[in-house]
Amino acid sequence: MDYKVIATCSDSKARAGVITTDHGEIMTPIFMPVGTVGSVKAVHMSELRDDIKAQIILGNTYHLYLRPGMDIIEQAGGLHKFNSWERPILTDSGGFQVFSLSENRKLKDEGVTFRSHIDGSKHLFTPEKVVDIQRSIGSDIMMALDECPPGTSDYQYAEKSLRLTQRWLERGWKHFNETSPRYGHRQAFFPIVQGCTYVDLRQDAAKHVADLGAEGNAIGGLAVGEPVDVMYDMIEVVNEILPLDRPRYLMGVGTPANILEAVDRGVDFFDCVYPSRNGRHGHLYTNRGHINILNAKYEMDDTPIEEGCQCPACRRYTKAYIRHLLKAGEMLGMRLCVLHNLYFYNHMMTEIRDAIEKGEYASYKKKKLEGMMEFDLEAPHDGYNIARNWRKG
Amino acid sequence: MDYKVIATCSDSKARAGVITTDHGEIMTPIFMPVGTVGSVKAVHMSELRDDIKAQIILGNTYHLYLRPGMDIIEQAGGLHKFNSWERPILTDSGGFQVFSLSENRKLKDEGVTFRSHIDGSKHLFTPEKVVDIQRSIGSDIMMALDECPPGTSDYQYAEKSLRLTQRWLERGWKHFNETSPRYGHRQAFFPIVQGCTYVDLRQDAAKHVADLGAEGNAIGGLAVGEPVDVMYDMIEVVNEILPLDRPRYLMGVGTPANILEAVDRGVDFFDCVYPSRNGRHGHLYTNRGHINILNAKYEMDDTPIEEGCQCPACRRYTKAYIRHLLKAGEMLGMRLCVLHNLYFYNHMMTEIRDAIEKGEYASYKKKKLEGMMEFDLEAPHDGYNIARNWRKG
Repeated sequence: MDYKVIATCSDSKARAGVITTDHGEIMTPIFMPVGTVGSVKAVHMSELRDDIKAQIILGNTYHLYLRPGMDIIEQAGGLHKFNSWERPILTDSGGFQVFSLSENRKLKDEGVTFRSHIDGSKHLFTPEKVVDIQRSIGSDIMMALDECPPGTSDYQYAEKSLRLTQRWLERGWKHFNETSPRYGHRQAFFPIVQGCTYVDLRQDAAKHVADLGAEGNAIGGLAVGEPVDVMYDMIEVVNEILPLDRPRYLMGVGTPANILEAVDRGVDFFDCVYPSRNGRHGHLYTNRGHINILNAKYEMDDTPIEEGCQCPACRRYTKAYIRHLLKAGEMLGMRLCVLHNLYFYNHMMTEIRDAIEKGEYASYKKKKLEGMMEFDLEAPHDGYNIARNWRKG
Repeated sequence: MDYKVIATCSDSKARAGVITTDHGEIMTPIFMPVGTVGSVKAVHMSELRDDIKAQIILGNTYHLYLRPGMDIIEQAGGLHKFNSWERPILTDSGGFQVFSLSENRKLKDEGVTFRSHIDGSKHLFTPEKVVDIQRSIGSDIMMALDECPPGTSDYQYAEKSLRLTQRWLERGWKHFNETSPRYGHRQAFFPIVQGCTYVDLRQDAAKHVADLGAEGNAIGGLAVGEPVDVMYDMIEVVNEILPLDRPRYLMGVGTPANILEAVDRGVDFFDCVYPSRNGRHGHLYTNRGHINILNAKYEMDDTPIEEGCQCPACRRYTKAYIRHLLKAGEMLGMRLCVLHNLYFYNHMMTEIRDAIEKGEYASYKKKKLEGMMEFDLEAPHDGYNIARNWRKG
């Protein structure tokens, strides 16, 4: 995996770059739609490629490991073959879902035991095992196993947790270097910086991660309950230390505003369930802010969700019709909302890259944030004030 | 609305024709996907047009009347504008759903009172009112209000019911001729032949309907519990009387085999929820018969649902992946299965038209029916033996 910075900003740390994988190029900064079980919910792969123009998607190791299971994915020749997505795939380590979804989990130095949320069966994830699973999945970018403590953890717990994450990282890194890809294409391995909201722990973690010299690095454990300004501060602390010549992935973040701020601070990769999950509930992103399409005022509104938007929903349907579909419980309604939101996110990333290349990122960001304030009283402020992060898929 | 027969068969009553409406041509015999509340469940209008190549869809008056309601549809300028479907639309009268879905319905000479299955509100459908509603919807083909008695009704009830249907038909026909389209395009009105499984009642009903001289005629009250051979006999009895120079619509029918047999007996129009509803449950139509994709034997099957099929599911995905999506409760799985089934039905209608035009319908039908027997032990025999008809959407 190669990464090249192609433009930087004079008035911020924002940068545009290009990553080359064996499944094609990724222009950064980039947003990855979440394809939990190998499918971005409700979205056809051709829509993802042609309408949303996604360059990379995220798969959840925890979900894929439990269902369909590695036998079926290996038999298909890896996830790319199984789900027919020809472009890059990143998989998480599964750790986050073990902590958020499964029951009776037990954290030990060896790894974490847990029971499946599907059938209650017992499993063990170790730093080595999640590398093996991701080798079976065949993702282009694999993630290290980590513990993600709550954003409100006290120092003592945060430090103890970080030490475990660091021991796991060393084991995972070693195992990564001792094993090979299964399907003939290259796989990168990204370590994750933890350390909660404590500057010294974040610095310690960032140095430890930077010293590995991995092909890319991730920042985890943010947008998990801490105030949004603390999140931005932590990104700054960590990005002071992470190498400039490797891409940086801020895990599970976030709202359009979060992404604009994190790009400003030198982040290149994002993923979040907001656009798809909010879309399924009729909460839609526009350049003027959130709207809730179930609002009665849209009952007879014969305009698209956003004038000028080139997504498949806005090119064809009115708010009144989409609202009717959601009210009637029609699958097509959810699907159109998800398509709109994913298009909005992805299109914003295109604008972001353009602005960086033109050296106008600061003014673009200011204008975009101001525009989005207009409608923001109408819908829940998911994350505009407090970033929350539930990457449950 | 104009109808022209363009080919007939020497060895059957099958005929191919073309109907011209103000929303374009319909090549018959044709299958209409069911778009209950204005949307064919899970399917995007562009898929319906470009992938499935549907020429006409069916909307349910009962559903549209209750939700979104006529205010919203009129405000949009009719259903075509509301749901963005530019091709022809047929609406039923709503009567069938009143009998199958709503509570506390009361049949009177005036019409039928019922309570909404959504909110319990009380409504009255009269023969005149369902014409008015369909004028508001703006469908290209409207249907008369009728009562559809169970396929097992005794003679006395069937006759009493038919007389009511006939009185309603005369009132509806009169009202249709005294009212005008609202949106500038022509609307046709099809009367419906009832009469249960009694030859003399069916003949009486067919004569009464034929005498009206409507632009097309429908056969209702079949595939509602009677043996399939009785259904075929009734079609023959009725089609002896209905005029040859008007299209004939067999309502709510049916399986691929039912359609092949009914075309053989001179039917031109079909609608049925089987392809979409069965698709949502993973029951798939193929040229070798039904398959149930949830069957364990497809767990690692890396072939498409049907080799050579040009539907969006078969062009891209394997049985193993689609099965995984359904097992994981993913919307995309249902959507792919619905697309496949609707494509199968629509593609079969293309084959049927080709065979009629080539004068080879009898041999085509024989071969198609034999082929479909291969897999038929594997899935429920919905309608291969007994045709059932629940057009609940």
